[in-house]
Amino acid sequence: MAVRAAVAGASGYAGGEVLRLLLAHPQVEIGTLTGNSNAGQRLGALQPHLLPLADRILAPTEADALTGHDVVFLALPHGQSAAVAQQLGDEVLIIDCGADFRLEDAGDWERFYGSPHAGTWPYGLPELPGARDALEGSKRVAVPGCYPTAVSLALFPAYAAGLVEPEAVIVAASGTSGAGKAPKPHLLGSEVMGAMSPYGVGGGHRHTPEMIQNLSAAAGEPVSVSFTPTLAPMSRGILATCSAKARPGVTAESVRAAYEKALQDEPFVHLLPEGQWPSTAAVYGSNAALIQVAHDAAAGRVIAISAIDNLTKGTAGGAVQSMNVALGLPEELGLPTTGIAP
Amino acid sequence: MAVRAAVAGASGYAGGEVLRLLLAHPQVEIGTLTGNSNAGQRLGALQPHLLPLADRILAPTEADALTGHDVVFLALPHGQSAAVAQQLGDEVLIIDCGADFRLEDAGDWERFYGSPHAGTWPYGLPELPGARDALEGSKRVAVPGCYPTAVSLALFPAYAAGLVEPEAVIVAASGTSGAGKAPKPHLLGSEVMGAMSPYGVGGGHRHTPEMIQNLSAAAGEPVSVSFTPTLAPMSRGILATCSAKARPGVTAESVRAAYEKALQDEPFVHLLPEGQWPSTAAVYGSNAALIQVAHDAAAGRVIAISAIDNLTKGTAGGAVQSMNVALGLPEELGLPTTGIAP
Amino acid sequence: MAVRAAVAGASGYAGGEVLRLLLAHPQVEIGTLTGNSNAGQRLGALQPHLLPLADRILAPTEADALTGHDVVFLALPHGQSAAVAQQLGDEVLIIDCGADFRLEDAGDWERFYGSPHAGTWPYGLPELPGARDALEGSKRVAVPGCYPTAVSLALFPAYAAGLVEPEAVIVAASGTSGAGKAPKPHLLGSEVMGAMSPYGVGGGHRHTPEMIQNLSAAAGEPVSVSFTPTLAPMSRGILATCSAKARPGVTAESVRAAYEKALQDEPFVHLLPEGQWPSTAAVYGSNAALIQVAHDAAAGRVIAISAIDNLTKGTAGGAVQSMNVALGLPEELGLPTTGIAP
Amino acid sequence: MAVRAAVAGASGYAGGEVLRLLLAHPQVEIGTLTGNSNAGQRLGALQPHLLPLADRILAPTEADALTGHDVVFLALPHGQSAAVAQQLGDEVLIIDCGADFRLEDAGDWERFYGSPHAGTWPYGLPELPGARDALEGSKRVAVPGCYPTAVSLALFPAYAAGLVEPEAVIVAASGTSGAGKAPKPHLLGSEVMGAMSPYGVGGGHRHTPEMIQNLSAAAGEPVSVSFTPTLAPMSRGILATCSAKARPGVTAESVRAAYEKALQDEPFVHLLPEGQWPSTAAVYGSNAALIQVAHDAAAGRVIAISAIDNLTKGTAGGAVQSMNVALGLPEELGLPTTGIAP
Repeated sequence: MAVRAAVAGASGYAGGEVLRLLLAHPQVEIGTLTGNSNAGQRLGALQPHLLPLADRILAPTEADALTGHDVVFLALPHGQSAAVAQQLGDEVLIIDCGADFRLEDAGDWERFYGSPHAGTWPYGLPELPGARDALEGSKRVAVPGCYPTAVSLALFPAYAAGLVEPEAVIVAASGTSGAGKAPKPHLLGSEVMGAMSPYGVGGGHRHTPEMIQNLSAAAGEPVSVSFTPTLAPMSRGILATCSAKARPGVTAESVRAAYEKALQDEPFVHLLPEGQWPSTAAVYGSNAALIQVAHDAAAGRVIAISAIDNLTKGTAGGAVQSMNVALGLPEELGLPTTGIAP
Repeated sequence: MAVRAAVAGASGYAGGEVLRLLLAHPQVEIGTLTGNSNAGQRLGALQPHLLPLADRILAPTEADALTGHDVVFLALPHGQSAAVAQQLGDEVLIIDCGADFRLEDAGDWERFYGSPHAGTWPYGLPELPGARDALEGSKRVAVPGCYPTAVSLALFPAYAAGLVEPEAVIVAASGTSGAGKAPKPHLLGSEVMGAMSPYGVGGGHRHTPEMIQNLSAAAGEPVSVSFTPTLAPMSRGILATCSAKARPGVTAESVRAAYEKALQDEPFVHLLPEGQWPSTAAVYGSNAALIQVAHDAAAGRVIAISAIDNLTKGTAGGAVQSMNVALGLPEELGLPTTGIAP
Repeated sequence: MAVRAAVAGASGYAGGEVLRLLLAHPQVEIGTLTGNSNAGQRLGALQPHLLPLADRILAPTEADALTGHDVVFLALPHGQSAAVAQQLGDEVLIIDCGADFRLEDAGDWERFYGSPHAGTWPYGLPELPGARDALEGSKRVAVPGCYPTAVSLALFPAYAAGLVEPEAVIVAASGTSGAGKAPKPHLLGSEVMGAMSPYGVGGGHRHTPEMIQNLSAAAGEPVSVSFTPTLAPMSRGILATCSAKARPGVTAESVRAAYEKALQDEPFVHLLPEGQWPSTAAVYGSNAALIQVAHDAAAGRVIAISAIDNLTKGTAGGAVQSMNVALGLPEELGLPTTGIAP
Repeated sequence: MAVRAAVAGASGYAGGEVLRLLLAHPQVEIGTLTGNSNAGQRLGALQPHLLPLADRILAPTEADALTGHDVVFLALPHGQSAAVAQQLGDEVLIIDCGADFRLEDAGDWERFYGSPHAGTWPYGLPELPGARDALEGSKRVAVPGCYPTAVSLALFPAYAAGLVEPEAVIVAASGTSGAGKAPKPHLLGSEVMGAMSPYGVGGGHRHTPEMIQNLSAAAGEPVSVSFTPTLAPMSRGILATCSAKARPGVTAESVRAAYEKALQDEPFVHLLPEGQWPSTAAVYGSNAALIQVAHDAAAGRVIAISAIDNLTKGTAGGAVQSMNVALGLPEELGLPTTGIAP
């Protein structure tokens, strides 16, 4: 029994990655694909890597085109999902890859996005405490941001186990696909190659409140986050270096034990053997998150590092994984844990 | 009924890619993995992207370890396959990703490789005229070189249809994985990034006689090849720009028609719609070859361009595709035609 | 006695590179800088690498702002130079980095650029036969295109010496800066990294008639050109692989001798020792062109390969070199022949 | 009156960059160049970008070859400088690009380098308080490590002004040239492109004690450092993201004022205008360090970010700058503050 899926925003990077994964999903049949300015074009001209769908024509992103599916993936610019969702009704599973329904606090939303808050949907990071239960059977899913995925997976075990102080310091490097496909001068290849560049420094990045929300929930107390994102000269991947001051009595062994316990049953989050550190190269195109953690006794800090593919585990893979959970399918169905390297 | 497969040389790039594809193949069970200097190590330390096989330990590359499989993939340095093959017996399917059994002419082998010729096996490029028949039921397969794959797919339709003169001019750009994993100064990231560099110019590259062999067979007459390979700053991918003088009477229409006819039934070789040119980005990790062809009336030449992933269609994907044909499985089984982009 | 120079189009890649070179020129004083949509902005916000000019404010590109200089460099979109030049008068040296005045044949211009032909100025590639004389004392210079620079330097010795047939086959790889700074989707870093992509295949590239013009002049007969440009995943650099059928009696020795003779006195064009091939990495930021040539006896062709930095020798360095010649300064003054590597 | 300079280790990345800069230095004449395994080879075969020195032959790295110069730059593997220095005598200026003489504490040296401590020389980062005085007239200079250069320039103003707590958290991304030219598998282009990878996590990197030394000196009290280096897919550049908890009463204004005061007279360290963040792209090949600083009130931290070229300001540029100071030449002589972009 096939699940019929539509993708709104099929010409962008998130939409394209959803399609790449759905093509390999044994229970999904790909239905309508929509675009905005690209409606009417062949998908092959826009996403030439999706060869099996090359002759599909994009429909306009309208409710009419999207009805009649079991699942609708929304890969739209921020702020556009609520209107579409409302028109599709309560019975269809809607998975929003945008930011609209991630935050619980309306004030945070308004401060960072500058528009009225549309609401809060179950959060599509099944690995977080309680998240899997909330997703099962849900008809709505808010897919996490790519940075919050990487950071939350790296740090929630430390906060859940009370290992560290509630002040996290995070520096993350992201591939350029995280910035989307709309052409802007600073995203040109000529500008990006050979360049490491920070942006949104000092608390300004929109993913900061989402990290605070997740880490505070894990810690059971408010956690402050100093987050510095940087743009790296690669298409895909996030490497998040996360640290916080170790609480008294914490040791290398207690840190390792807490991470092993928190992650041992997770199909997609993999704690590496001691001494091996994650690299984005190992998760290229994979839904796996690789994690390593260390206790720096001299500096008195716990350092957790995660590597994900921002478009796979960080967006489209997280979306399909959440779809599996919401529909009651095996969580791993159709999702790769093998990356492409070198 | 599972096909049990061993991979000799599992720590290298070709071996790793064979494993990546076999992990997704529905009828293959992965058996022994071997390495040379890496024997005894966890695969996870050498190929961290192959997460499902992370705890496998490499055996030494010896016949003992490789017996008891239905298929053995050899991803060994040139010149080492014959000895291993001999020990494994006639009943096991052996697929050699190395060069040892590709050439028909012993003199060519000796001139380019400097050692005695080991023999000639059925050639694992099913798309070439007659190749599929020779592979069916064979217990031996010589996987083509990556450049000859790209070039032969781009030009065989022109030669088979008699469109062009028997003097081909080829300039190809390859990602660095084509040069393998053995560390050499000129392959360091610091040297490679930002650099386009030719090598083996003027007929010296070992893949030249293999191209001549394939194109001459298609043409039914000896074809000369001027081949210039260049190293491009990317890990994967070959873009081959191939041209030859058009014969009298050739037109854009006759060229297009010949290519459509030659490629229309191929599952992995895709002639793009007119006006769209192949890019290596669209076949990253895919077994597809993208082809486009044009007639430059002013210069009097036919120009055919192909893009492949050198490790997938150019090596490991070609190997698995040939395995499918040799075993009588559906040729496309387990092989992606979807690339990873961006 | 300082030469006072203005740069129109200082916010683009060509303009920025002219400024980088002028900053190191011992006889030039940098005057007015202009921009179009960026007029009124600090140069430091647009070209942060030009630190000594960070506080300069861009004036609008108008004749008023550009008068009162000894030299005006025009780095404007094609078609805009003629109008500006006319207003500046005959006494100022105008060096046009655009295409407007490169072609001698008005029909070629109209066919490839679709607008009326503005005229022909002395051609700023001093290494071509006769070019240096035409530049000396001239008040107008048309800076060559980047591809024609690379290709003409590689092939003019072969044509001038009558070594090859008048049918050149050229495949060139260029860094993305050659496509300029205007943001377009296919030039995004996400699209470009990991990708080799051809464009303008089959004679369509605007630089083709310029190559034909230069090579035909060197040969003394019409030369046809099959030119395939490809976009490479790097910011800068052109590697041009150029070949043509060897004429009867041509040998490796006669080829080498012809190139040595043609290039021996050139300060910027360097024939490498036998066996060493040019790489774009060696000319990053340098005004040098590296050349190597081989005779492929089996294929019957002469293959010449050049590497340049498309923005330096291919644009701004060629412009400053021509300025030196036009003003009677030492031709090498202020121009680097050292690249930045790795 | 020319300064005659020798370079020991001319075939490596540091030695090559010293030569690139010396070629542009108006008062330096380049004398003997030495190599180890490359002795006897043409420099042009090893460093093809140094075209003006292409025909130089490398001498073996022995005292005989190095005597008779005013300055000797040592670009040797760690641990080899002391023996060479001893043989050269006290009157020649020796500038050691290696680590041997950087640390003041012999215990630190032995813990991190595992060999006896050779001593401590004046530290070649003139921007640090007191450093310039120690360098003037000195016959010995220890060039700082690349990471310590980036980190110390970013944070010393905050520590000198007492703005932050003595616990620094640093995450830095470096281009691959920082790892040198000796070929190792993890530095292959195939491995590096598309990859962000941490290493030496948790206090293990040898540059950590050097950062502690510099920051503690600036603070006047012991500063702990949590340092995570990461390898980025680019040849050159370091982006260092450095933060520490703000002390009570610190404001955005007081932070800005302290940095302006500390850096205002520095020729190579440039505090960017507010709102503009440093990128490695802007200092490619330049001796400039770009700095920006912010106060994140919500997280209670001061964040300072620096961008340098690891081979220029981070090694060879720092070396030449220190030579200028030691010899009483103008500090900026021959050193670029212009980068190459894009």
